[in-house]
Amino acid sequence: MKALWLEAKALSVRDVPVPDAAACGEALIRVRLSGICGTDLELTRGYYPYTGVLGHEFVGEVIESPDGEWLGARVVGEINAACTTCPTCRAGRPTHCEARTVLGIVNRDGAHAEYLTLPLANLHRVPDSVSDDAAVFTEPLAAAVEILQQVHIAPTDRVLLIGAGRLGQLVAQVLALTGAELHVVARHALQRALLRARSIPTCAEEDVAARAYDVVVEATGSPSGLDLARRALRPRGTLVLKSTYAGEVTLDLSPFVVDEITVVGSRCGPFAPALRLLERGDVDPTPLVAERYPLEDAVEAMDRAAQRGVMKVLLHP
Amino acid sequence: MKALWLEAKALSVRDVPVPDAAACGEALIRVRLSGICGTDLELTRGYYPYTGVLGHEFVGEVIESPDGEWLGARVVGEINAACTTCPTCRAGRPTHCEARTVLGIVNRDGAHAEYLTLPLANLHRVPDSVSDDAAVFTEPLAAAVEILQQVHIAPTDRVLLIGAGRLGQLVAQVLALTGAELHVVARHALQRALLRARSIPTCAEEDVAARAYDVVVEATGSPSGLDLARRALRPRGTLVLKSTYAGEVTLDLSPFVVDEITVVGSRCGPFAPALRLLERGDVDPTPLVAERYPLEDAVEAMDRAAQRGVMKVLLHP
Repeated sequence: MKALWLEAKALSVRDVPVPDAAACGEALIRVRLSGICGTDLELTRGYYPYTGVLGHEFVGEVIESPDGEWLGARVVGEINAACTTCPTCRAGRPTHCEARTVLGIVNRDGAHAEYLTLPLANLHRVPDSVSDDAAVFTEPLAAAVEILQQVHIAPTDRVLLIGAGRLGQLVAQVLALTGAELHVVARHALQRALLRARSIPTCAEEDVAARAYDVVVEATGSPSGLDLARRALRPRGTLVLKSTYAGEVTLDLSPFVVDEITVVGSRCGPFAPALRLLERGDVDPTPLVAERYPLEDAVEAMDRAAQRGVMKVLLHP
Repeated sequence: MKALWLEAKALSVRDVPVPDAAACGEALIRVRLSGICGTDLELTRGYYPYTGVLGHEFVGEVIESPDGEWLGARVVGEINAACTTCPTCRAGRPTHCEARTVLGIVNRDGAHAEYLTLPLANLHRVPDSVSDDAAVFTEPLAAAVEILQQVHIAPTDRVLLIGAGRLGQLVAQVLALTGAELHVVARHALQRALLRARSIPTCAEEDVAARAYDVVVEATGSPSGLDLARRALRPRGTLVLKSTYAGEVTLDLSPFVVDEITVVGSRCGPFAPALRLLERGDVDPTPLVAERYPLEDAVEAMDRAAQRGVMKVLLHP
């Protein structure tokens, strides 16, 4: 099968064997559509050492399964495959299992391919009314929903989101559902237009009120975003870190202590609520689709996705 | 009156006027005993610019009051004097009032003196059964209790405390009350002996289990303590920052995101529960008293308190 292969920071589309799902007791899924994520781009820059098929956002169809009930189902899949037996798994934190593999990220071939395998426990059926174009966003939408899983945002809160890229747009839509007073710092005109289309107010960086927000979500992964977040937060406010930071960051921690700030790191989230939001149309990710490429042009697609201001690039196997 | 005066990082015991409590509608308190805190030492090193009478841990007696009911009362006092009218005060966060003064720290003469003034709203009566030697610890004990105000520590949690100095000892006693499995990293023999006397287990730095603790409290204010805390914490664990950090700290934030760590800055706490714990004898700070000096020798007392491994130094006006 064709697949987008990463090795020593070099990308190529190559022929690899169709994975043997039966041998590992997993489902074989034919990929219908996959999405390029910021993490894919970071992996090509060496964020983690990873060799294998890239990609972890997908919608597909089960074509082999240990359990006949899943055959033919249109599915999305959670990307962390946990061991299910370690103390972390048994404590109900399987996405943090130390022995886990992660689709297209850690020791598990990914979704920019014709086929992939995942354990049945990772799969979620996609409701008929949710298109492939919407369903392919389930994984990053779940990551946005994770914020609400971790932090109680009250309808009377003032919330600032810094960053309105691929993930930021989904975070903005999810935060807006809380009814809170939401402002989004968006650098690019397209980002602002997408938010305006959903009546989500944007805010120039220089107009962000100091010490005024109950919750600030930092989704740029840049030290300047972190600095702005710190200044915008009120004492005893909550700062959600929704992006990873390249390299080390230097910061003055004393104001975090004096102002009793809570900082919450936030990563993968729950798929079931993400699918419910898509089914009800409360979140609509499809305006974020920027371009489509056939899988054989995946290297070019990755280049395109790396350009500034480009939203979601999809791959058709 | 005699007072310990800080100006341009220089300390002196000098004669200053007795403060005019009536003019500002506050209570005049005769100090019975004051305690030297790490923050006093940091202020002499220029942590904040402050000129005035140092000191914020005290027990005293009300000798003038706008309300006759307080006359003669033995009291301790919350150190943040809030404006009561700003949005932060009205939102129930007076200790974060932007216009606040802070006893012996920000724009308000402190407790290493014969007299001080505070608003009646800041005062708490000391139960008769609580000695002056215990009551003088109410303020730092409240800061220790603040951890439980901010973070739910379950009886089945594994908790690590890093640092067992003046504040750390009180934090250890408070954390032990949760019933959680508590280990304390204590560098000095005296620190370990004080903990052992309360059956609180200590743990050498090199024996701290990696990724094993649900909650880690960092009370050293050192980058090495922060690093140890990070390594000891399990995914989705909570890191409480109980000390301020001199200067900037460089750290890799990505593991905080990937492991979904919650970081909570923690400062001043509630006096009423601290006094209840002292009254019931659930916390006993008196073994921490290392030395006593008359107020006129306060400069020498500060030097002594700055030496390694010295616990609480008290001043008698």
